[in-house]
Formats: sequence, structure tokens, C-alpha cells
Amino acid sequence: MDVLKKTILSEGKVINEGVLKVDSFLNHAIKPSLMKEIGEEFAMLFKSNNITKIVTLESSGIAPSLMTALSLDCDLVFARKRKSLTMTDHLYSASVHSYTKQVTNEIAVSKELISPEDNILIIDDFLANGQAALGLADLVHQANATLIGFGIVIEKSFQPGRQILEDKGYRVESLARIANLSNGTVSFEDATIKL
Amino acid sequence: MDVLKKTILSEGKVINEGVLKVDSFLNHAIKPSLMKEIGEEFAMLFKSNNITKIVTLESSGIAPSLMTALSLDCDLVFARKRKSLTMTDHLYSASVHSYTKQVTNEIAVSKELISPEDNILIIDDFLANGQAALGLADLVHQANATLIGFGIVIEKSFQPGRQILEDKGYRVESLARIANLSNGTVSFEDATIKL
Repeated sequence: MDVLKKTILSEGKVINEGVLKVDSFLNHAIKPSLMKEIGEEFAMLFKSNNITKIVTLESSGIAPSLMTALSLDCDLVFARKRKSLTMTDHLYSASVHSYTKQVTNEIAVSKELISPEDNILIIDDFLANGQAALGLADLVHQANATLIGFGIVIEKSFQPGRQILEDKGYRVESLARIANLSNGTVSFEDATIKL
Repeated sequence: MDVLKKTILSEGKVINEGVLKVDSFLNHAIKPSLMKEIGEEFAMLFKSNNITKIVTLESSGIAPSLMTALSLDCDLVFARKRKSLTMTDHLYSASVHSYTKQVTNEIAVSKELISPEDNILIIDDFLANGQAALGLADLVHQANATLIGFGIVIEKSFQPGRQILEDKGYRVESLARIANLSNGTVSFEDATIKL
């Protein structure tokens, strides 16, 4: 997705070989027109899959999910992150370890918000080690809903997330795939961008 | 805003005289078409104010803010909540006490994301005791930006938030104003709804 790649090149900050900071348009500030295009792209990719609900993770997954849900005319649910969970009877929950932040969070959704009839598209801002994605998939499976696939805004293809998800048979659609962050610059898997 | 009031009446759950749960369309699941109408309503209310940026608080403020920002053609920034903050040199931060949850969080935005030239609209999902609103206003003032006013999705008018903000001279626009939650039902300040 060219407009996304261009924005990553112009506004992303390579912190080190593993970390790309995109605070100016996705993770802290949000560019609505870009989110709209992202939503339309995900909707186009999954339009034939009868998606009934989008599941994402607070907070950075909400904006791209909302625009996708608007395009697909379905609701979305964002899982909440907590250091620990109490009173879990009404929740589906899973543990997610973040290698970037070196913390483990519990993520959870209310049981009443996902039903076995739902066809779910999981959307997240980043795919790196796949731990958040697996946690979200776990919630969907606990609800006995159908997981159609994953829509990822930015994939760090040099980390194992995609392989882990594909090995489980999941469909993964990423709008920008980063081959590496060497020498302080972003290199994409598909280097062709119409500038 | 009739469509919002109707949704509150049909889907909101009165937990007790102080707490209204709106998990099915605003705080956990999100209804995109409703968010779009909310965004258009805020945009209409503030269209003559040359808003350059919307500031909100993760996570529930993001969806209505995104749709408003899309309508006003400006960016948005969501402040992050943390139990505690480290390395605050690059952040504007404030303490916010939640009477509902009985916790105090630090909220923060990166200094580079708000500038003195910005005309800011603060949007939040709820206005109750006004503590989150005051914390967000504090961040805006630390940046020496201009605070145009507050856009609130649901105001609990029986709590002091609006009065506190108005006493400071702030403009407050709420799309649904709840007079009370007595007897397990929602009563609005303006009872007229075109059903």
C-alpha cells in the first residue's frame, strides 16, 4: 500500500534494528485520511469473506479497525489490556507477552460481544513476534467464532510473527512489510513504491 | 442527538445510580455508523473554530475523535494512561483520578505532537466529575496551545464535571446529557426524542 509506505518513509523513526516508531500517524497521533485508506484496503481484501465483526487490541488497533468496520459495515470489539484480571467469569482472556516492552499483559473481551455465528477479522497495528495476534486468535476460538484472518498495518517481516501465524493455517494480509531496519533506514519486502 | 439517546436507551445498562455501562457501542464494542454520526455532529458544532487538532484519552475516546477528525480534516492525538511514568522529559503529563474506578492514572502526550499554534478540541466518551477533562486541558495548556472547548459523547449531568469546566470558562458540548440514573432507568436532561 503505497501511501502507507510513503508515510512510513517520511515520518517513521527507526529507533534501532528492531524498533520503528510511528507515533506521528498511527500509535499516538493518528492521521484520519490515512486510516480511511487503510480501512478501505482491508475492506477490499476481505470483502468476499462475510466479515461480521472486527476484533482488535486497544489502543493502537482501534483507529484502523474502526475505518475497516465502517467500510465493511460491521461492528468492532477491542480487547482490553490489563496487568492482571479479576472477576473473569464473563470474560474470554489470554496472556500476551510483548518482547518489545518486556511485559506480559492479560487481554480480555466480554463473552457477550463475540458469538459462535461471528466471522472475525483480527486487525492490529504491528505484527512482530505474533504474540498479540495469537492472543487475539485465542479469544476468538474461545468464543467458537470463525477466524477469517489477520489484517496487519505494519509487518516486521524479519521477525517470526507471520511464519507462526501461517504455520497455524491463518491468512495474513499486511499493508506494509518491512524487510529490515538496518543502518537506520526502512527497507520494504516489496521495494517498488510509486512515489 | 436523537440517535445516540435512542442507542443509550436500547443498549445502555444502568449498573447503579452512578454508573451507565455502554460496552455494546462505545466502551468495548463500537458501532461505526453511530461513531460517524457523532463525529459529524461534533464537526458541525465546532466547524467555525478552525480546529487544528483533536486531543483525547485512550481507549474509548479514540473512535469518536477519529470520526470527528475525519469530518474536520485535522489530526488527532490520544493521551496515554499509565500507572506511573518514567522518562518524562519529552512528555506533557498530568494526574487524573477516576472516582468510578478509584484509581489515579498519569496521562501523557509527547511534546512534539501539540504545538502553540494548535487550536484544540478535546473529545471524551464520558463527562462525570471532570477529572479526565481537566487533565487533558492541563496537557493542552502545558503546550501553550489554544483550547477551543470540549466535545463529550455522554454527560452525567448529575455529577459536577460540566459545572467545574464552565466555571473555568470552557465551552462544553455534550451530545447526550443524563439527568439521572434512578430506578434503573436513564433520564435525559432534554427528554424530547424523536423516536
